[in-house]
Amino acid sequence: MKKMYLLAAMLLSAFASQAQQAIFERHDTRSPQFNDDGTVTLRIKAPQAIKVTVIGDCIENGNQELKKQDDVWSYTTNVLAPELYSYRFYVDGVETQDAGNIERSRDVRSFMSTFIISKEEGDQGWLYQNHNVEHGDVAHVWYDSPTLGMKRRMSIYTPPGYDKGKSYPVLYLLHGAGGDEEAWLTLGRTAQIMDNLIALGKAKPMIVVMPNGNASDDAGPLETGIAKKERPSKTYEESFPDIMNYMKSHYKIKTGADNTAICGLSMGGGHTFRISMKNAGTFGYMGLFSAAVRLEWNSKKTVAEQFEDNQEATAQMKALFAAKPRLYWIAIGRDDFLFLQNAELRSYFDRMKYPYEFYESEGGHIWRNWRIYLSMFAQRLF
Amino acid sequence: MKKMYLLAAMLLSAFASQAQQAIFERHDTRSPQFNDDGTVTLRIKAPQAIKVTVIGDCIENGNQELKKQDDVWSYTTNVLAPELYSYRFYVDGVETQDAGNIERSRDVRSFMSTFIISKEEGDQGWLYQNHNVEHGDVAHVWYDSPTLGMKRRMSIYTPPGYDKGKSYPVLYLLHGAGGDEEAWLTLGRTAQIMDNLIALGKAKPMIVVMPNGNASDDAGPLETGIAKKERPSKTYEESFPDIMNYMKSHYKIKTGADNTAICGLSMGGGHTFRISMKNAGTFGYMGLFSAAVRLEWNSKKTVAEQFEDNQEATAQMKALFAAKPRLYWIAIGRDDFLFLQNAELRSYFDRMKYPYEFYESEGGHIWRNWRIYLSMFAQRLF
Repeated sequence: MKKMYLLAAMLLSAFASQAQQAIFERHDTRSPQFNDDGTVTLRIKAPQAIKVTVIGDCIENGNQELKKQDDVWSYTTNVLAPELYSYRFYVDGVETQDAGNIERSRDVRSFMSTFIISKEEGDQGWLYQNHNVEHGDVAHVWYDSPTLGMKRRMSIYTPPGYDKGKSYPVLYLLHGAGGDEEAWLTLGRTAQIMDNLIALGKAKPMIVVMPNGNASDDAGPLETGIAKKERPSKTYEESFPDIMNYMKSHYKIKTGADNTAICGLSMGGGHTFRISMKNAGTFGYMGLFSAAVRLEWNSKKTVAEQFEDNQEATAQMKALFAAKPRLYWIAIGRDDFLFLQNAELRSYFDRMKYPYEFYESEGGHIWRNWRIYLSMFAQRLF
Repeated sequence: MKKMYLLAAMLLSAFASQAQQAIFERHDTRSPQFNDDGTVTLRIKAPQAIKVTVIGDCIENGNQELKKQDDVWSYTTNVLAPELYSYRFYVDGVETQDAGNIERSRDVRSFMSTFIISKEEGDQGWLYQNHNVEHGDVAHVWYDSPTLGMKRRMSIYTPPGYDKGKSYPVLYLLHGAGGDEEAWLTLGRTAQIMDNLIALGKAKPMIVVMPNGNASDDAGPLETGIAKKERPSKTYEESFPDIMNYMKSHYKIKTGADNTAICGLSMGGGHTFRISMKNAGTFGYMGLFSAAVRLEWNSKKTVAEQFEDNQEATAQMKALFAAKPRLYWIAIGRDDFLFLQNAELRSYFDRMKYPYEFYESEGGHIWRNWRIYLSMFAQRLF
């Protein structure tokens, strides 16, 4: 085995010649560097550059210039609270990832480098990291959707111990516009959040189902096999029972509203809003994260007025609450462009005496909020 | 639903402002652009750059300068044969991905942009693409390894129809040094190769198991939860039965040598060499791809002389062939730095009259060869 380690070392040095070079360089190009005072230094070597900037949610005002010393440009953040942060360099205007950091996430069609700050067990950053706890499995499966006329890809998290044979409750977790069945696993950190909350005893073990919410697609852009995508005659919302049927026939799940939850971000919050309305009594827990909740997107009327105009929707929402769901949870940041329509929905619910809970956070329509909402909502389930 | 599409469009335009901008730009910054003559044009906008180069296996001599027109630099490849290609820009020496291309793959700790050329169904590039065929599922599971004293992550491909209840033969597919349980799925294109070969009727439906071959790790660098990695007292090779036991107890598999294959690249080829020797009669098919096959890495002796010095290994290899495996397949490129030791192994096998098959390809120790070897080896199985 010793020889294999030697071979490994040899091959590594061939493959990772870049890393080797860095060791012999005079300048410190470590990036990101986590400083004792809670700041983070980001660096990039760019001897000939005239101007280097960095954007991201860990950058003061979202955009700063780096300073050059010898050949290396650097920027040190303010003290950062526990969180997952993302950033990207621009070298003389050219988008550049941090070559020193292998943590990168795709959001729709662009990439950001990421890092996580955690100060103690259980803080928000800790929830997003991999720890030496029991891990759930993650499967990417192709389920049959007769409604949409195709096999479609989705991601499924099963909790630690699932292989022992017990049945588990199910959370359906929906992505936003432009996203796909990978979104909640990458920037959403769902597997880590669930592993860690379960390990802390703060969430019940559950199955988490992450479908693809784009009815024309069979899968995300890196996995789709359909060259020409035709708009199906049915909607994603109409096809949702196909997903639930797959789960019933392929996984060991507990059924009934008390064991079934649905939530989603942005467009996925809109899906949650509509799918739960159209299937009163199916879901015991609903979570709307920065959700699109208008019945008519272009209407100038308030959400309440739209319900008044729409007797079918009114009856559906009435039936939803008549089934006495355990939790209807609305979360949104006060800077979110959908804040107003969520306020309108809450007014309508207040008037109708529909019980819901509201969580108002800081910030806008951003992943940071959606990860926080998921970690809060998951603790309320089952 | 129409409103949801409107919302989707609105959010997309907010999220993908970069893409939007590109549409309104005067210069063509499409990249990669697939030209009718079979060449590919790569572009990057870098108005202030002095020199832009591109490296990659689609680049003449592996490294070329781009030419600037207005603000956009471009390079057009030669006519490319069907394959998966990778490349990376350097703008005044700074590593930069192609912002226009969302296909990127991590190899160990560095990233390359990728694209695939295919000219007709069934060609090598076609095998690596996603097509509208039946797809197998891919799971990332944590199996218990009592031998190494930890739960460890591995990736498992199950063929289309696996959910119908039949049992399938198993291929264990091992990565190289620096790699992890993701390597064969990303640059290795295993799920696509298997889906497509099965769809063409050229490979039997099978389960493909991709473990992590680094005994000190529980998972690859982006998924590990172990901060301090201690060298376990046992080796990965010794722990291999843990993987096979997991498969027996968790998956519907056909057992016995005729239904069990193992192969791997580089270090994983070395693992294949040793694991199959130590478990004579377990594997009916062995595939050594650019494999490390010396018994003593630092020895100045030939492989044959090393076997002569090592009676245990000699007896193990004798037992392996006494069990009459269906295929012992050795593949390597003629420029590979491990070519000589594979030639030595073949000489030894020739002398011992051990039946094997040899495939000599062009090129060296590269993913292009390993994808080709997998697609050839898979067609020979079961």
